[in-house]
Amino acid sequence: MQDGEQVEMIALANMLADVARVETLAHFRRPSLETRNKLAAGFDPVTIADQACERAMRELLARQRPQDSILGEEMGPTTGTSGLTWVLDPIDGTRGYMSGTPTWGVLIALSDDQGPCLGVIDQPYIGERFIGGMGQAQLDGPHGIRPLQTLPPRPLDQAILYTTYPRIGTAEECAAFDALSAQVRLTRFGMDCYAYGLLALGQIDLVVEAGLQPYDIHAPIAVIQAAGGIVTDWQGGPAHQGGRVLAAANADIHAAALAVLSQAVPG
Amino acid sequence: MQDGEQVEMIALANMLADVARVETLAHFRRPSLETRNKLAAGFDPVTIADQACERAMRELLARQRPQDSILGEEMGPTTGTSGLTWVLDPIDGTRGYMSGTPTWGVLIALSDDQGPCLGVIDQPYIGERFIGGMGQAQLDGPHGIRPLQTLPPRPLDQAILYTTYPRIGTAEECAAFDALSAQVRLTRFGMDCYAYGLLALGQIDLVVEAGLQPYDIHAPIAVIQAAGGIVTDWQGGPAHQGGRVLAAANADIHAAALAVLSQAVPG
Repeated sequence: MQDGEQVEMIALANMLADVARVETLAHFRRPSLETRNKLAAGFDPVTIADQACERAMRELLARQRPQDSILGEEMGPTTGTSGLTWVLDPIDGTRGYMSGTPTWGVLIALSDDQGPCLGVIDQPYIGERFIGGMGQAQLDGPHGIRPLQTLPPRPLDQAILYTTYPRIGTAEECAAFDALSAQVRLTRFGMDCYAYGLLALGQIDLVVEAGLQPYDIHAPIAVIQAAGGIVTDWQGGPAHQGGRVLAAANADIHAAALAVLSQAVPG
Repeated sequence: MQDGEQVEMIALANMLADVARVETLAHFRRPSLETRNKLAAGFDPVTIADQACERAMRELLARQRPQDSILGEEMGPTTGTSGLTWVLDPIDGTRGYMSGTPTWGVLIALSDDQGPCLGVIDQPYIGERFIGGMGQAQLDGPHGIRPLQTLPPRPLDQAILYTTYPRIGTAEECAAFDALSAQVRLTRFGMDCYAYGLLALGQIDLVVEAGLQPYDIHAPIAVIQAAGGIVTDWQGGPAHQGGRVLAAANADIHAAALAVLSQAVPG
């Protein structure tokens, strides 16, 4: 891809995230009584927001890049001709969204057949945007713009590990996670996609998840790689198909965590 | 307390939170290399921020209200003559703070011998302030000011329950929590004191914790009660001494959750 086209793609990714902010915030933390009345009438604010957000992003892409494919959580795949795919998760962390937390996010990636090359993790309520790939690696938030850079190596027993749910997946996956958790300094839960942003920002060392979809992980891969980190599956292979994911701040901590996970779940 | 003195106290609570924002943000998400070098030199940014924040709040109180007592997490009790106590937790959620999350907070309460009568839960990074008591019940945040109002009753199997750690406390306390968790629609983790704000805002139904200190819960009690909620221990008694805490959106959901917890841990 030429530099000029990359600039265009970065601008478009930001436009998509801007559109998504409007759509997701329109239904976020609605007053309880209003939401309850609508719920009684069969209205689900999370689903409404999810669908409206993906629809708005697709409309923008149809105008600006009709030649690209789209893979979205809500509306499935749309096939284009360019070899490029926009991978969209309009609300990653719907359970956080429906609880009013500031940890859900909008995930936007541009990927080719090798995997993601540009990614955005946007938290609309805080107004924070992590972007990585095509020469970008920055957080733009309420306290200004800051470069993304992952943590340098430190021993596993000093590391901070995040995942969303304590019961990460199957019994075998839970046992693998618990084995890793037992070796780190601190394990924390519940951050949804925000944890990938914290990894890219050099705040934590590891994020481990299981049972992911491709649209859950394309954008985080691009952001974390641009910040100096590594994202693979639990065998060290590519992670952009989803499933079991190990995101690490650097090669050393990745190898240490991979040794534990791959032994516990031998592929 | 006269209305005029209440206005003064509300203004002072906001000034304390303003001071705390400056002190806590000065050390939050420091660039990793700088932090690492300071850590190697024995520097702990969380402890530094915690102590600097409490010191700054105490200096303000010494100038404005020398007659009041202070109970702070970092520097213990200071005895005054007014019968009023400022209860301060400069950083509630230090593990969230050291991971860069936006879920830790500054807790400020004004209490008499009956318990808390004014509370502030402040999230400095997002710029969100929950305040309750003395006629106040509002969230002031990046998207404006909004009144606090807890959720109306709904059955336990539709409720959203939060706590910080999956292993909430002792084995007996964990079993009680798990019994409650098994009956609700959704259990989520990791929000630190932010979960009390979400309860006051009408986003979630229940927060359950164990092993709390008084300074962990005074401010949340005032905020949640002002928003229409109820906070007790697991036997239905006062919670302002800390320990096991059940915070609920309304009397019905409180009674339903209390029945499960009090049966599992009979006091």
